[in-house]
Amino acid sequence: MSGTWLDKVSWNADGLVPVIAQEVGSNKVLMFAWMNREALSLTAETGQAVYWSRSRKRLWHKGEESGHVQKVHAVHLDCDEDVILITVEQVGGIACHTGRHNCFFQKLEQDQWVIDQEVVKNPEDIYHHE
Amino acid sequence: MSGTWLDKVSWNADGLVPVIAQEVGSNKVLMFAWMNREALSLTAETGQAVYWSRSRKRLWHKGEESGHVQKVHAVHLDCDEDVILITVEQVGGIACHTGRHNCFFQKLEQDQWVIDQEVVKNPEDIYHHE
Repeated sequence: MSGTWLDKVSWNADGLVPVIAQEVGSNKVLMFAWMNREALSLTAETGQAVYWSRSRKRLWHKGEESGHVQKVHAVHLDCDEDVILITVEQVGGIACHTGRHNCFFQKLEQDQWVIDQEVVKNPEDIYHHE
Repeated sequence: MSGTWLDKVSWNADGLVPVIAQEVGSNKVLMFAWMNREALSLTAETGQAVYWSRSRKRLWHKGEESGHVQKVHAVHLDCDEDVILITVEQVGGIACHTGRHNCFFQKLEQDQWVIDQEVVKNPEDIYHHE
């Protein structure tokens, strides 16, 4: 948490920074989420993506339930220093909680949102709750 | 502005949605910005990216000064319906105001942010002010 590199990031009023996760190789955008200082620090330290869940108000180690962790290959900061882009290997090939490869599966076509991406695995088979 | 497809988007408390712009072909992430309802509507209508500038508090037709407009090939919405991904052709091959191809040119390497992308064109030659 002491890294001065973390001070370079312009955290927003909530202490968060928006994060884009992109797949290494395909360059496909997998998902969008947020990190706080601790999450970004842990992401760099562990080499796996750790986000801040705004709904659950806690650190969210991506894949903690599903096993679909993201192995981080690179971390980039944008020109305004208020957006992070991480390049990751998506374990299991599924980033989205709907069981799809990525979260951007609704495409605008003639004023309609049309699903243009198939489910890889049924979410019920991904998330095992007792 | 009357499109019901716009109602599907979960606008944040400020009436904005985060937008990721990705280059068609290379799949590189060019930039990250925000849109309000009018900006997204205009983007779909005109086929060119129109953002909401939070600093200038006005609509921002990307490329209005530089000529580096973004021609929109696709618009996607994520699973939570609160993030937009646009796939664009970046006219001029320069998306960043620093004169670089894209905004993510600072890479984290051993606790340091290192610039890993060259300037394509001097910003002074891009933005002509009288």
